[in-house]
Amino acid sequence: MFDLNSIIVILTIPATAVMAASAAIQAVRFDFDLFGATFLAVITAVGGGTIRDILIGATPVFWLRDITFLITAVPVGIITYFIVARMQGGQGQRFRLLSYFDAVGLALFTLVGVKVAINAGISPVMAAILGGITGVGGGMLRDVLCGVTPTILKSDFYATLSLIGAALYLFSVPYLGEEISLASSFALITVVRIAIVARNAT
Amino acid sequence: MFDLNSIIVILTIPATAVMAASAAIQAVRFDFDLFGATFLAVITAVGGGTIRDILIGATPVFWLRDITFLITAVPVGIITYFIVARMQGGQGQRFRLLSYFDAVGLALFTLVGVKVAINAGISPVMAAILGGITGVGGGMLRDVLCGVTPTILKSDFYATLSLIGAALYLFSVPYLGEEISLASSFALITVVRIAIVARNAT
Amino acid sequence: MFDLNSIIVILTIPATAVMAASAAIQAVRFDFDLFGATFLAVITAVGGGTIRDILIGATPVFWLRDITFLITAVPVGIITYFIVARMQGGQGQRFRLLSYFDAVGLALFTLVGVKVAINAGISPVMAAILGGITGVGGGMLRDVLCGVTPTILKSDFYATLSLIGAALYLFSVPYLGEEISLASSFALITVVRIAIVARNAT
Repeated sequence: MFDLNSIIVILTIPATAVMAASAAIQAVRFDFDLFGATFLAVITAVGGGTIRDILIGATPVFWLRDITFLITAVPVGIITYFIVARMQGGQGQRFRLLSYFDAVGLALFTLVGVKVAINAGISPVMAAILGGITGVGGGMLRDVLCGVTPTILKSDFYATLSLIGAALYLFSVPYLGEEISLASSFALITVVRIAIVARNAT
Repeated sequence: MFDLNSIIVILTIPATAVMAASAAIQAVRFDFDLFGATFLAVITAVGGGTIRDILIGATPVFWLRDITFLITAVPVGIITYFIVARMQGGQGQRFRLLSYFDAVGLALFTLVGVKVAINAGISPVMAAILGGITGVGGGMLRDVLCGVTPTILKSDFYATLSLIGAALYLFSVPYLGEEISLASSFALITVVRIAIVARNAT
Repeated sequence: MFDLNSIIVILTIPATAVMAASAAIQAVRFDFDLFGATFLAVITAVGGGTIRDILIGATPVFWLRDITFLITAVPVGIITYFIVARMQGGQGQRFRLLSYFDAVGLALFTLVGVKVAINAGISPVMAAILGGITGVGGGMLRDVLCGVTPTILKSDFYATLSLIGAALYLFSVPYLGEEISLASSFALITVVRIAIVARNAT
């Protein structure tokens, strides 16, 4: 139904958007101004894919080859910043919202990373690892720049979940086809991740 | 009057020096010893250009191809460290000095980054962005390594100013020529940046 | 006796192991869980070599080309985590253990970095610098991710010692041969580094 490149682009645009939104929420929590929030949104949105491209030598990195990703991240970051800055309910609600966006971004970018790596001729095991790096990289940069210990290091099952999701996709795609494998893996990562966040919050 | 490469080198040497100096000042503020200060000076001085070269795939990165930049950064870092460590007047004066060096480094490295990117066949929009990355990258690494939230994220108009300066240069160079465009853009970034720092200090 | 590549591999495996162990110890000190500790172990173990490969453009980076390094880092990280988490004696003893592993990792990775750089046709001066980067890079990433100011910036003679060790190797190898030069340089870095840590602890 779709060719490989269009699937990658279709996944990457919403992944870019949710990670930009997650960064804008973090920026509000840390009292950044609009400029800082926008910058953090861009770095977070393209960070995982940038690390992946640098590691495999796919340069110039993806967002230098196609301006779509910056054009997505900047307005999403700005709009989210204004909405969240006006939100009632304080830290708890913002943190929950951040976690939801982060979970969706983790799932989408994991799958994007796997597909880009496979596309570049990387072996399945390494493609799963590069999927994990693409999934967690943006959030890791976001947290380091904010001076927070990255979620990946202190939260059970964050990077591991991304690796499991990537492996699930790679195992199921020969049997279930592209769309069902992507959907299953996406569902696994987001549902488990949101369940963990919800359990920890109570 | 100058060819492209000599303009890049002429801009990069003083940019390297002021960023090395900014790092040495930061190192004194954080009570680093001489070795730590020197290392921070080198990372800060070559950091922005290194990120740029890695993103566009220009490897080995610039300071591995020409030792001039390390030879500039190391003694400037050491000398600045000794001078600033002996300065009277405490934190306020050191912070102001840091901000001035940082402003000049931001301006020079932004222009260097634009020219290197154009030279490498990157489109003008992306060249402006790479100029911004070259401008802010070194200071960002400096701040992350010191455990400080980078200026870029908490200060109005830091990365944005770098992007505006890069765009001004790219727009004016066909009409005003190389020297005047470089000088105008340099003046814009440094004057606005120092004005913002001065206003915030009072 | 050994060819160049087998020497690099023979050095890299234990270097990977000790740096993974150092990260697992740091992870226990910072109360990370097993997943976070494992991730930190991998990033620390392959971090220095990854920065080196990216700077010289040797992509895909080394651990994407050969899975041995991940296969070494993951179990060493996990086992060290369990042993150290059960250790009596608290922070002082763990910090000392961390410093010993870090010293051995610094020495081994410095030598690996020099040899990989020479192998890639880099000049001796730059090879010494890339040795230093390979030596200190993993520990630097480990500390930044934990929100700690990197040892390299606050501790006398850390990066400098790595550079001196690299230079010693490069100077002595034409006269003393491969094995003796490697052993001398390894001994210099570890002995001086452990002596400094021991002196500071008292």
